[in-house]
Amino acid sequence: MEHRTGSTVVTVVDGEGRPVADADVTVRQTAHAFRFGCIGFDLIPLADGELAGAAAEAAGLLAEQWLELFNTATLPFYWGDFERVRGRPDTARLLAAARWFRDRGVELKGHPLAWHTVTAPWLLELSTDEVAAVQRERITREVSGFAGLIDTWDAINEVVIMPVFDKEDNGITRLCRAIGRIPMIRLAFETARAANPAATLLLNDFDMSTAYECLIEGVLEAGIRIDALGLQSHMHQGYWGEERTLETLDRFARYGLPIHFTESTLLSGDLMPPEIQDLNDWQVESWPSTPEGEARQADEVVRHYRTLLGHPAVEAVTYWGITDAGAWLGAPVGFVRADGTPKPSYAALHGLVKGEWWLPPTPLRTDAGGRVAVRGWYGDYEVAAAGQRGGFAVSPGAEEQQVVLR
Amino acid sequence: MEHRTGSTVVTVVDGEGRPVADADVTVRQTAHAFRFGCIGFDLIPLADGELAGAAAEAAGLLAEQWLELFNTATLPFYWGDFERVRGRPDTARLLAAARWFRDRGVELKGHPLAWHTVTAPWLLELSTDEVAAVQRERITREVSGFAGLIDTWDAINEVVIMPVFDKEDNGITRLCRAIGRIPMIRLAFETARAANPAATLLLNDFDMSTAYECLIEGVLEAGIRIDALGLQSHMHQGYWGEERTLETLDRFARYGLPIHFTESTLLSGDLMPPEIQDLNDWQVESWPSTPEGEARQADEVVRHYRTLLGHPAVEAVTYWGITDAGAWLGAPVGFVRADGTPKPSYAALHGLVKGEWWLPPTPLRTDAGGRVAVRGWYGDYEVAAAGQRGGFAVSPGAEEQQVVLR
Repeated sequence: MEHRTGSTVVTVVDGEGRPVADADVTVRQTAHAFRFGCIGFDLIPLADGELAGAAAEAAGLLAEQWLELFNTATLPFYWGDFERVRGRPDTARLLAAARWFRDRGVELKGHPLAWHTVTAPWLLELSTDEVAAVQRERITREVSGFAGLIDTWDAINEVVIMPVFDKEDNGITRLCRAIGRIPMIRLAFETARAANPAATLLLNDFDMSTAYECLIEGVLEAGIRIDALGLQSHMHQGYWGEERTLETLDRFARYGLPIHFTESTLLSGDLMPPEIQDLNDWQVESWPSTPEGEARQADEVVRHYRTLLGHPAVEAVTYWGITDAGAWLGAPVGFVRADGTPKPSYAALHGLVKGEWWLPPTPLRTDAGGRVAVRGWYGDYEVAAAGQRGGFAVSPGAEEQQVVLR
Repeated sequence: MEHRTGSTVVTVVDGEGRPVADADVTVRQTAHAFRFGCIGFDLIPLADGELAGAAAEAAGLLAEQWLELFNTATLPFYWGDFERVRGRPDTARLLAAARWFRDRGVELKGHPLAWHTVTAPWLLELSTDEVAAVQRERITREVSGFAGLIDTWDAINEVVIMPVFDKEDNGITRLCRAIGRIPMIRLAFETARAANPAATLLLNDFDMSTAYECLIEGVLEAGIRIDALGLQSHMHQGYWGEERTLETLDRFARYGLPIHFTESTLLSGDLMPPEIQDLNDWQVESWPSTPEGEARQADEVVRHYRTLLGHPAVEAVTYWGITDAGAWLGAPVGFVRADGTPKPSYAALHGLVKGEWWLPPTPLRTDAGGRVAVRGWYGDYEVAAAGQRGGFAVSPGAEEQQVVLR
C-alpha cells in the first residue's frame, strides 16, 4: 500500500506564528483521500425530512452506520424516476439530499446521465432527433443545476450493450443504434463537460470483456476526454477472487485513466446460479442473509477492498448498498441486515477503513522548531495541543507544511 | 434473391454492326458476380508444378472440382510461413500460384497481412518500434508485389483479441498492446492502401460478439477506410442456423459496409464439444467423415449459402477448404473426402451455384431489332449464334447493351 501512504513534516505554530516547540501534541486522521463510496439512495427520505417516528429513528441509525464507513455517496438520477412526467424533474428532492450529504462532509456522485434502462418512458413518443435533443437538455439541466454539489457523474452507462439491448423498447437504445456508440458517448461527455467544466466524468460499464476495451480505445482515439473509467462489479454469482479482479484492473489500467470500481456487491446469502446472464432474470421470493453467507461475505469484503486499494489505478470504490432493506433483486448485499443490525462484514470493512488504514489519535512530540513528522494514509489530519487544533493533509508532494493552532 | 438478379436487353449485332434480327441465339451464364470463394492453399503445389505422377493426377482432379464450384481463391500469406527466415520471402512460389488461378478466371485474395498467430518468429528479437517498421515493410512488399494479381486483402486479422492474446509470445501482440488496436489497424490499412490504392481491404475477425462492433465503430470514427468487413465462421461446434446467422449479419450490416463471410466451415463428422473456447485446443487422433455427418453437412451447406446470399450485404463467402486432406485440426470440413471422392455437400452446393442460381445455355430469339431480353443472376454471360459469340454482363444498372458477335 506504498502508493496510498505518505509522509509530511508539520511545523506547528500558535496564533502569533511562534513554533510550538518541545510540546505534546495529538495527531489524528479525519478523512480518507481514497473515495470509499456507497449508494446514498436509502438515506434520501431521511435527508429530505420525509420520515417520522420509528422510521426516522431507523434511518438515523442507518445514516450513522453509513457515515462511519463511507465518504462518497452516489445519488440516483435514473431519468425514468427523476422525470417520469416530462417537465417535472425531481430536482428539489435530490438537491436537498445532496446538501444533507455535503453538510456531513460527504462527496457526491450522480448516476447516470444517460442510460437505456429506467430511462424516461416518454422518449418513445419522440423522434430520434428529438431524443438526442432532450438527452442533451437533461444532461445540461442536471449537471449545471447540481454543480458545486455534485461534481462527479457517470456521464453514460453501459454503452457496450446500449445499441443492441433488446429487453425493452426505449428511446436511448434507438438513438445509440442510429448514431453509433462513440457519437452517443461524445454527446453525453461534451454536453456534461460544457455544463460543468470542473466535473469528473466517467464512462461506466458492467461488461468487463474485451468489448469494453475496444469501446474505450475507440473513444480515446476519437479524442473524447474521459476522466475515469467505471468498472461495475455486482458479484451476485460469487466473488471474482483476487486473480480475476487484478487481471481486470490491469487490462483497464493500461489506458492510464483512474479507475472507479463502481457498483460492487458481495452477497451474504445464496449465490445466483452461474448460468443467469442478465442478473435481472433472477427473481426469488425470499433471499435471506445466512450465518454462513455472512461469514463468507466478511472474508470476501476484506479481500476485495485489499485487492482494489492495492492497485494504484483505483481511486474509488462504490459499494452498491449498505443495507439489505430494499436492495436490488432483494439480494442480501448489505453490510447491515434489513433489521438494522450490522453483519460481520460491517466490522470487517470498518476494521480496514477506520482501523488498519487509518491513523487513530496518536500522541507525538514536537521538536525544538515545533516540527513533528507524520506518516499515514493520504487524507486529512488534525493536530491538537492544549485545547487548540489545526488541520493538514497527507498527500503526494506535501512534504513540509505549517499548521496554525487555533 | 431479388437483390442478386437483374435484367438487361441485349442488342446482338454482327461484325459490321448490323442487328442480328429474328434469329435463334443461345444465352448462357459464364460467371457469377457473387464471390464464391475458397482457400486455394491445397492447389499451390499443383499450380507451381511441384507434383508428378499420382500426386499430380489427384491434385488435377481436385483442381477441376475446385474450379467448378468457386471463382475466388484465398492464398496464404501467414508471415511465419511466408518469411520464416528474415529476408527470404516465399514470393516466387505465391506469384506462380496466383498466376495459375488468374489464368483460370479466378479472382484472388491474400490472407492476412497482419496477424499475431503464425507470425514471423524473428519479430521476438526486435524492439517494438522495429516490429512496427518491418510490419509496414512487409505489407508494402506483398501488396505492391502482387498488385494486379491480388487486389483483395485481409489487411489485418483478429484484432479484438490481438493485444490480449496470451497463448504464445509474439511481436504483433506486443506491438498492438503498445500502440492500441485502432492505431494497429490504421498501420495495416494505411500501409496497404498506399501500396495499392485500388485494393479492397478487409478487417477480419472471428469474434462475432459486441466487441467486434465496438472495434469497428472506433475504427470508423477514427476515419480509417475499410472496404469490407470479414466475419469468420468456423462452425466446428455446429451450424449456427439461420436465425443466428441473420442476427449476426444484421448487426454487422448496419455499418453500411459490404460483408465477406470468411472462413466458413461445416463439418461432415462429429462436432467439437461446445465447451472448447479456442478451437485449437481440440486435438483428436482421427476425425472421420461419417455418412450421417455428410448428410447433415449437405443440408447445412445449402441452408448456410441460402441465408448468406439472401442477405443483401453479403458479397462474398469463403469456404475454408474443399478437401478433408490436410484440413485444419484434421476436421472433416471438405466437400470432397481425403480420397478425392465428392461428398453429398459437393453436389448440394453445386446444385445452387451452377443450378438454381445459374442460367444454363438457354435458347432465345432476337426481335426485328436484334434485341433479346435476358433476366438472370448478376454475372457474366455469353450470347451465341451461328458459331459466333459475344459476352455481356447482367449487373445493376446495365439495362441496355450491345453485343458484337465474332
